[in-house]
Amino acid sequence: MTLSPFAPSALPDLPPIEGLRFATCAAGIKYHGRTDLMLAVLDEGTSVAGVLTTSKTSSAPVLWCRGNLRRGGGARALVVNSGNANAFTGKRGQEAVQITAEAAAQAVGCAPQEVFLASTGVIGEPLAADKFCGLLDGLARDAQGDSAAWSDAARAIMTTDTYAKLATRKLKPGGQERGDITINGIAKGSGMIAPDMATTLAFVFTDARISGEALQAALSRTVRKTFNCMTVDGDTSTSDTLLLFATGKAAGVPYISSPADPGFAEFAAALEQILRDMAIMVAKDGEGLSKFVTINVAGAENWAAARKIALSIANSPLVKTAIAGEDPNWGRIVMAVGKAGEAADRDRLGISFGGIEVARDGERSPGYDEAAAAAYMKNPEIVIDVDVGIASGAATVWTCDLTHGYISINADYRS
Amino acid sequence: MTLSPFAPSALPDLPPIEGLRFATCAAGIKYHGRTDLMLAVLDEGTSVAGVLTTSKTSSAPVLWCRGNLRRGGGARALVVNSGNANAFTGKRGQEAVQITAEAAAQAVGCAPQEVFLASTGVIGEPLAADKFCGLLDGLARDAQGDSAAWSDAARAIMTTDTYAKLATRKLKPGGQERGDITINGIAKGSGMIAPDMATTLAFVFTDARISGEALQAALSRTVRKTFNCMTVDGDTSTSDTLLLFATGKAAGVPYISSPADPGFAEFAAALEQILRDMAIMVAKDGEGLSKFVTINVAGAENWAAARKIALSIANSPLVKTAIAGEDPNWGRIVMAVGKAGEAADRDRLGISFGGIEVARDGERSPGYDEAAAAAYMKNPEIVIDVDVGIASGAATVWTCDLTHGYISINADYRS
Repeated sequence: MTLSPFAPSALPDLPPIEGLRFATCAAGIKYHGRTDLMLAVLDEGTSVAGVLTTSKTSSAPVLWCRGNLRRGGGARALVVNSGNANAFTGKRGQEAVQITAEAAAQAVGCAPQEVFLASTGVIGEPLAADKFCGLLDGLARDAQGDSAAWSDAARAIMTTDTYAKLATRKLKPGGQERGDITINGIAKGSGMIAPDMATTLAFVFTDARISGEALQAALSRTVRKTFNCMTVDGDTSTSDTLLLFATGKAAGVPYISSPADPGFAEFAAALEQILRDMAIMVAKDGEGLSKFVTINVAGAENWAAARKIALSIANSPLVKTAIAGEDPNWGRIVMAVGKAGEAADRDRLGISFGGIEVARDGERSPGYDEAAAAAYMKNPEIVIDVDVGIASGAATVWTCDLTHGYISINADYRS
Repeated sequence: MTLSPFAPSALPDLPPIEGLRFATCAAGIKYHGRTDLMLAVLDEGTSVAGVLTTSKTSSAPVLWCRGNLRRGGGARALVVNSGNANAFTGKRGQEAVQITAEAAAQAVGCAPQEVFLASTGVIGEPLAADKFCGLLDGLARDAQGDSAAWSDAARAIMTTDTYAKLATRKLKPGGQERGDITINGIAKGSGMIAPDMATTLAFVFTDARISGEALQAALSRTVRKTFNCMTVDGDTSTSDTLLLFATGKAAGVPYISSPADPGFAEFAAALEQILRDMAIMVAKDGEGLSKFVTINVAGAENWAAARKIALSIANSPLVKTAIAGEDPNWGRIVMAVGKAGEAADRDRLGISFGGIEVARDGERSPGYDEAAAAAYMKNPEIVIDVDVGIASGAATVWTCDLTHGYISINADYRS
């Protein structure tokens, strides 16, 4: 596997979060010579929020998490496996979920409904949960909260990812003299990535003192402009899961019981930053990518229309291949704006690549410099600005190009 | 350019249609060493119908044709150029259309509003119509109606097509003892092909005696299940144009003035057959394809829901690459059903490849034979049957796989 050109030279050191420990192991679910099972152990009093795929063929773990979230209780454990998505596995899939939750509950000392589950990997193959459930006792015993535990956890959930994805933020709700809040997150990509809720697997942990209700409110409003504005291939997974856990162990910070409380807006802003960091990391490891692409659409009817146009550009195979070919092919951008189905004024459309204006008022810019645009397209990070000339709705979407690497990875992923 | 594996060894001989002649030439618009300009001359009394792209960034010729069709007059000429789409060319694009229509009108001896236009090729480059308009007089003088003229016309409108697309049908509305009606068509692909009306350029000609109103009714109802059920890459063009011309010269056949008239249903049925032939020909020449794929979805809420699910499967990069890799990866079909947004019962879903059942009732079939499915996937033509288990809506969509060839063609098409 070729490393993404955006892979970091070193993984960031994540600070510990009190009330949270991890352990991982190689359970041999599908991969050989790497870890594929991760357990997060959460102290009593941990609140939880989540957003899950809107797919009509959701996986068994997604349905399990949805049930737990609806019930509104807390969280004591998170079990994630890679190599098998436990999706489209019928009754056996539900049984695998039940067995895993019960084993984790026993290992951690909680109710099965306090165990959250996520699986990623091949769809349609039964998941032999009984084979790895015996390992959970040992994982619970060995779990650690240090920096190495964080990177081990991020690595265990990877599938076709070429690097582990970790992000961290700190905020001081009451100023320097008070306590602070840590938010850490891990995520995985890197194919079957398209936003229709959360996309991919991502787990965010904080020591904030916050109710489940307020946590869900913060997550629901921040996921829209972060994970839901990121796409690799337009293929929405059956297993998209983003869970957010708050252990409530931060000292000297106020308790947030509802979105009206002081400190909520600040927490939500920090959460949005870390979710954006993570979404960009996933896009920067899109299968086979050679370039990372930011698409800013302005002048649309509203944010939702701007996002739809930006996604139409981001998911267009012709736009993606043009970028791979380092071709400032604005004609394909015009096409993708046109097919999005949202209002756009053909005769007021403007397009720039990296600030180089290529089109204005519905035709090529008078001063367009093809050589400059072509030179810009050689950069690893490409920014495309589009103004559709209707109103003031704006949105940003992150994606990557479509290369021979994507074909190579996906034409023989399963076999 | 690698020839499509479905390219015919010889082009079909199309019978002449009275009242219709073609001429082509190499105008040097973009390509060298090939024809790129086509003129069809139609006798007085020719009625016309059309369906045009729904893109919000329609090309100048599309807007011109839409105006002509709305006006409701007849047709006397069709001018098509390849190499430049005259799309996103602003005022200059409209001027190029006006100049071309006036030159063709003068060459043929009709009003500019009786001239229909279509352009295909690069988007965003101004079309220098003045350079080729001088050629139209000569083309009008030299136009022929024989079989060679048909294949020349089909070749002149090609862009990345690897073979010319021609189809023909005959019908005898009154039985053997009466006269017959001929319908001939030419079309081009083979990228930026996704159905949102007609997709691509296609021109159908008949000698039927039929009003413009009845012709439009026949076209509108038959395009839904033919051209609008075909996709190569999900990218809807700015220039999609399907025009249908009837010279009214057939002898011994009744005049069809409205859809209620005898003979209309029979004509529409023959039209549907030829449009289906042409749509399949376009999919079989999809850019870089190695396999032609037919997707039958059943058990959906209605036809529109079934079509949407089938298109979600057909446009999924992960499904398309799995087929390229000869992998019977039903998990990706499940994903694509799930993301389509239409009702589907995950626990009643059934999937077959070429009649080999791989999944039933939401999980892998008990008797699934992986070796047989893998052997089937080696065929050049793949049929996928999906039952989503809700109601009785069914639809068929035609597409192709996604290969390294598509990337190669599109990562340096413009430069």
